Amino acid sequence: MKEPAMPSPSTSYPALLSPWQLRRTELKNRVMFAPTCPVWVRSPYEGAFTEQAVAYYEERARGGVGMIIIGGTLINRDTLYSPFLFPGLWDDAQVEGLAAVAEAVHRHGCKISVQLLHVGLRAATAFKTDPAYDFDATWHMSAPSQVPPGEYPGALVPKELEEHEILQILDDYESAGRRAMAAGLDGVEFHMAHGYLPWQFLSPLYNLRTDGWGGSYEKRLRFSLDAMTRLRSAVGDDALLGYRINSTSFWEGDLEPTDLEQVVKDFDERLDVDYVSLSAGVHHSYIHTPMEYEEGWERGYTNRIKQVTEKPVLLVGRYTTPAAAEEALVAEDADAILLARQMFADADWVNKAAAGEEDDIRRCVAANYCWRSVTRGGRVQCVYNPTVGREAAWGSAQDAPAATARRVLVLGGGPAGLEYARVAAGAGHHVVLHEREAQTGGHTRAFGALPHRAEYARIGTWLTAQALGNGATIHTSSPVAAADLDDLLARERPDHVVVATGARVRRDGFQGQTARPLPGHETGNCVAWDEVALGAVRPEGRVLVIDDLQDVAAPLTAHALAEAGATVQILTRWPMIAMDTAPDVYLHWMLTYLYRSGVEILTDHFVKEIAGDAVTVFNIYDPERTRELAADWIVMATGRQSENGLYHALRERGVSVEMIGDAVAPRGTYEATFEGHRAARKLEGLAAPAAA
Amino acid sequence: MKEPAMPSPSTSYPALLSPWQLRRTELKNRVMFAPTCPVWVRSPYEGAFTEQAVAYYEERARGGVGMIIIGGTLINRDTLYSPFLFPGLWDDAQVEGLAAVAEAVHRHGCKISVQLLHVGLRAATAFKTDPAYDFDATWHMSAPSQVPPGEYPGALVPKELEEHEILQILDDYESAGRRAMAAGLDGVEFHMAHGYLPWQFLSPLYNLRTDGWGGSYEKRLRFSLDAMTRLRSAVGDDALLGYRINSTSFWEGDLEPTDLEQVVKDFDERLDVDYVSLSAGVHHSYIHTPMEYEEGWERGYTNRIKQVTEKPVLLVGRYTTPAAAEEALVAEDADAILLARQMFADADWVNKAAAGEEDDIRRCVAANYCWRSVTRGGRVQCVYNPTVGREAAWGSAQDAPAATARRVLVLGGGPAGLEYARVAAGAGHHVVLHEREAQTGGHTRAFGALPHRAEYARIGTWLTAQALGNGATIHTSSPVAAADLDDLLARERPDHVVVATGARVRRDGFQGQTARPLPGHETGNCVAWDEVALGAVRPEGRVLVIDDLQDVAAPLTAHALAEAGATVQILTRWPMIAMDTAPDVYLHWMLTYLYRSGVEILTDHFVKEIAGDAVTVFNIYDPERTRELAADWIVMATGRQSENGLYHALRERGVSVEMIGDAVAPRGTYEATFEGHRAARKLEGLAAPAAA
Ligand SMILES: Cc1cc2nc3c(=O)[nH]c(=O)nc-3n(C[C@H](O)[C@H](O)[C@H](O)COP(=O)(O)O)c2cc1C
Ligand SMILES: Cc1cc2nc3c(=O)[nH]c(=O)nc-3n(C[C@H](O)[C@H](O)[C@H](O)COP(=O)(O)O)c2cc1C
Ligand SMILES: Nc1ncnc2c1ncn2[C@@H]1O[C@H](COP(=O)(O)OP(=O)(O)O)[C@@H](O)[C@H]1O
Ligand SMILES: Nc1ncnc2c1ncn2[C@@H]1O[C@H](COP(=O)(O)OP(=O)(O)O)[C@@H](O)[C@H]1O
Ligand code: SF4
Ligand code: SF4
Repeated sequence: MKEPAMPSPSTSYPALLSPWQLRRTELKNRVMFAPTCPVWVRSPYEGAFTEQAVAYYEERARGGVGMIIIGGTLINRDTLYSPFLFPGLWDDAQVEGLAAVAEAVHRHGCKISVQLLHVGLRAATAFKTDPAYDFDATWHMSAPSQVPPGEYPGALVPKELEEHEILQILDDYESAGRRAMAAGLDGVEFHMAHGYLPWQFLSPLYNLRTDGWGGSYEKRLRFSLDAMTRLRSAVGDDALLGYRINSTSFWEGDLEPTDLEQVVKDFDERLDVDYVSLSAGVHHSYIHTPMEYEEGWERGYTNRIKQVTEKPVLLVGRYTTPAAAEEALVAEDADAILLARQMFADADWVNKAAAGEEDDIRRCVAANYCWRSVTRGGRVQCVYNPTVGREAAWGSAQDAPAATARRVLVLGGGPAGLEYARVAAGAGHHVVLHEREAQTGGHTRAFGALPHRAEYARIGTWLTAQALGNGATIHTSSPVAAADLDDLLARERPDHVVVATGARVRRDGFQGQTARPLPGHETGNCVAWDEVALGAVRPEGRVLVIDDLQDVAAPLTAHALAEAGATVQILTRWPMIAMDTAPDVYLHWMLTYLYRSGVEILTDHFVKEIAGDAVTVFNIYDPERTRELAADWIVMATGRQSENGLYHALRERGVSVEMIGDAVAPRGTYEATFEGHRAARKLEGLAAPAAA
Repeated sequence: MKEPAMPSPSTSYPALLSPWQLRRTELKNRVMFAPTCPVWVRSPYEGAFTEQAVAYYEERARGGVGMIIIGGTLINRDTLYSPFLFPGLWDDAQVEGLAAVAEAVHRHGCKISVQLLHVGLRAATAFKTDPAYDFDATWHMSAPSQVPPGEYPGALVPKELEEHEILQILDDYESAGRRAMAAGLDGVEFHMAHGYLPWQFLSPLYNLRTDGWGGSYEKRLRFSLDAMTRLRSAVGDDALLGYRINSTSFWEGDLEPTDLEQVVKDFDERLDVDYVSLSAGVHHSYIHTPMEYEEGWERGYTNRIKQVTEKPVLLVGRYTTPAAAEEALVAEDADAILLARQMFADADWVNKAAAGEEDDIRRCVAANYCWRSVTRGGRVQCVYNPTVGREAAWGSAQDAPAATARRVLVLGGGPAGLEYARVAAGAGHHVVLHEREAQTGGHTRAFGALPHRAEYARIGTWLTAQALGNGATIHTSSPVAAADLDDLLARERPDHVVVATGARVRRDGFQGQTARPLPGHETGNCVAWDEVALGAVRPEGRVLVIDDLQDVAAPLTAHALAEAGATVQILTRWPMIAMDTAPDVYLHWMLTYLYRSGVEILTDHFVKEIAGDAVTVFNIYDPERTRELAADWIVMATGRQSENGLYHALRERGVSVEMIGDAVAPRGTYEATFEGHRAARKLEGLAAPAAA
């Protein structure tokens, strides 16, 4: 286990890596892990941190950040809503797990606080999913007024809080603050951003009350003033107390930036708080900023507030490089930089910055797979850092060179093969990889070639650079055929072969509705979406994009073609388009692109037959109703199929061989890198194969 | 705790309630609890039954069914997919919980078996949501061929099983069967229905193999033959072994009913099995039959198979009345009747049938709230039986008359007030209820007035009849105003008052996007959807239905008006319509109605302004693009608001008062009945109020 080098004055990031003091707390640098959903509990009903939480946070502390702010932690059971895995601080039994996390984090000279959350009206509609949970629990949301969250269809209307309930919530904040101190934390953060309860009191959009808690600016302010006053008394004079607020919500009718300036000024004067943490956007707008946004984009909104406050300002927003973070500090746009997703993607960011190893940073590509995992009721997982949540086994403290170096042959240089090569070579194994194409990256290259998705290609380029840096040999433009195998095996004499040949996008329109190619596909001018994205073909004229996947492929291919001048129509048998981009928080973007580029969308229809440039489609809900569409080109975003002939050929030969990634089953980048990583870690344990 | 009376020969259901023998097992009647998701585990990774499972199944055994078939229980860890709460039989540690269930069920003279499941390709796309789960676990689906499930958008493609994996799965069936015996069960069921793995092998739609496991009918049959042969050897000669299969899948390209006849005939000849359990439809078609279907509707499909098999046939399908079940047996359409959802709605069905208390049966209305709860990762919950999953506290064994009878006044006769009255009166309290309208039922009446939703009104009528039967006094057409309270309190002298006045549907278009009424609503001819459903107003001409809820209200109101001759358009700011009916398995129906009745749908648009019969709308994703719509009537399905002024008025008076149901926060029938039930159970424990 290697401890990070302490940042030295010779660093290229003197502002970022300089120690500073916040109230009475000494921080070793100006980088903090932003609050993110702390899904490291066994069950939301229990709400207590586990050993997994300890390993997860310790890994980030070991990586060098100055402070960790644990994300949304529930202050009472009423705001608990399934199926999200939130911890709580409503019960003394929850202190122990948090204390274990704090203790582990402190061991690395890192400070730690916790963000206290009440979601108010902003909750899923599922409530408690266990009927036997706590017979006294509420089965509703509570908020200042009966306004449903505007961002979910079918959102339920909350209870309008009674005054005695408001007072109880204030008590709950105080008790939660006390428990945070009992756990040994350095401070607490009041979460009043992102449209949650304190924001709901503050905003005239949500607060329609006419009693002492609404009606005027002063009354809307009261809840937060009272809560933070009580939090200060709970945490005492030494501990940190900050608050997080957004500079804008991008939602019509909500508080405007000028209102926020006033709020922050008033808090400066009337509260004993230590910092203001600024973000832009609410829950459902730009928090999980899409990949086309630049690092530091939020400054356009936060700077106005930075100018009116005397308090240190914490800034967030797509930061992935130390240079951009340094620049923001130097420009005095902030006093510290928060990294959220970047801390999932690479826990070791500060150490790498300090060591001048910026290029080794696994930069967050804003794919939002992490958010997707959380909204599906699971734990944070990163699309290309498979160690997240697995730190106890795969954390940096467990990295060690292999005792016996093995010779391994990797076939295919997509994310699965590359991650395998990176990890195996990193442990000292002898790795040779063959990639058919002139460039490695596999499917990440095609997704990165879609408009507005360029970042995605970073996954492949980073993995390639790291594999090479670790000593792997990569042969590009080197397709391996079954007939080559004997020669290749004789030449490389591998102890083990890994088939990572991935999957191909089918051109024949194969999908799950008929489990067959589309009838007549061979008569039409059919191409696969990735051929279009990668520029292998250039459809023009009347283009029909057939979508069965509901991901970004069809809409962005359509958008690109429309922008290039084609007349484009998307056809799907589903009732809408881009459905599966919703959990990634990209749906809004997709629809905006499509509307603006004039792509025509035909939902609820499916192909009956393709006959040259004529496509007959029928209504799924009324199959007798058919229509004829004209298509000079037909672009398929319908299905994929694994390419794994080499695996079977190798198995027949009795060599030690395994398949990973899309070659096993076409899925996504996450599964590919996870399987690549896992397999590489097991390489050393493999039985040596019988001599060939 | 009262034991059920044994069915006597004098019953009106001699066939249904007669004992019979299946292999060597004596069954006390011909009613069985159909296999349904046994979500009574703490976590799917653990997959072991809890105390909650014991109480849940014991309650159903106590209710008199002859046999319980526990639903889908996973045979290995590879088929485990989050977030659904499935138990497993892949580990000896899972035997204990199942044994405890079996022991409790047997105590009531009820038999019990378990359905063994491998889902194959038919799984959610989330896989394992815990990254730290089992570092050897698969992170993909497996199936005979690489066909994705056709019913989900964005469905992932499975791995094509290798032969050695198929053999392993057969082993796993056998081991699971052995564990079922070790748990003391009476038998096992092979789940080959509903599109899961064995069906995938059997069906040419999913099985595209050309090796020993596909290509011909005989080869497609092999997997099931082998699995059941091994299961027989695992369970031994005494135990029951049955299989479940569907008579049709209603999916083009899948096996046809004639194919199924052949399969069942072949199994008759080639396997030592004890029964065939028939259903119609697969996972994604008609399994969770909608409410407009009649009891026994599946016979149209299953009878053909019944005629070719020598084995006893178990029949399922919307059965809710003993009379219909008896009729099917008398007609020799089946040898036993399976109840699935009806066993959620009323565990005591057999006892009530035997006692001639048919009218007391809480009939399942096919709302599919139970399925919805499961698909959201939770446990089965019934829309109007709040005791499900809460049997340990609220089961029939816990029912007892109150020691001290209290006087309680209930204001409002929707499901919340009615359930309160039913339970409180049942415990011997003195209950008086006032309902404003001429009929009780509240919102269930409005939903029941929508086309194809008549069953829903049963909720209100059943609750009313039961409350009356238990001795509650119900005053209809009896609105209570704040001004009446003093008189009413003086007259009734209640120990406690319950405000269950519910919520009203807003006519002004209030919703979460603007948190305000729609601008200009007062100039338009605006009405609420429930006024239309209940016939209070009759919109004609050009009707605009504004939907913000995405439930059944807008589409079915639109459908009804279109059928009555109006020109109807639905406007919604969401990208599709009826989104929230998907978890209830009603989406397909909604869209079919809408297309067939010619309702025009405008998605992604929202109201800018209403000016008389002109409505200006804008595109959500390109707000500059506006359009003008003409509307003689505007029907709002946008928002609701609680009506609880009486609660506040009573609180001010210092009387013992509480709010339940939609009066607290507008939600659904489930929350209303749950809160009514819970509050009533707490009535006795309330402190006696100070004398008035
Ligand atoms: C998975 C996930 C969970 C988050 N949870 C929280 C939270 O609990 N509290 C909070 O204030 N912000 C939360 N955020 C927002 C982040 O703190 C941050 O503002 C946002 O991700 C933008 O920063 P980034 O570009 O560095 O990721 C979350 C973001 C993500 C991606
Ligand atoms: C919540 C729920 C879970 C179910 N789980 C299973 C299952 O595990 N195995 C199975 O064969 N059928 C399952 N089914 C189907 C039922 O056994 C039954 O065939 C269907 O609900 C129709 O019967 P009913 O009208 O009596 O409800 C399930 C149905 C529901 C509503
Ligand atoms: N026969 C082959 N020889 C060498 N490379 C191959 C061969 N077949 C496929 N590949 C390469 O394997 C890679 C697979 O990548 P991809 O499909 O993204 O899968 P994964 O996500 O599993 O990494 C692609 O870059 C593809 O060009
Ligand atoms: N002031 C009142 N006096 C009597 N009954 C009322 C009054 N206000 C509302 N109600 C009745 O209360 C019932 C509430 O039912 P509903 O809205 O379905 O709520 P819930 O789902 O909570 O039962 C309705 O039948 C309504 O007519
Ligand atoms: S999943 Fe994507 S957005 Fe999330 S941390 Fe990883 S790279 Fe960044
Ligand atoms: S929720 Fe609805 S469908 Fe399910 S058991 Fe209850 S009444 Fe029947």
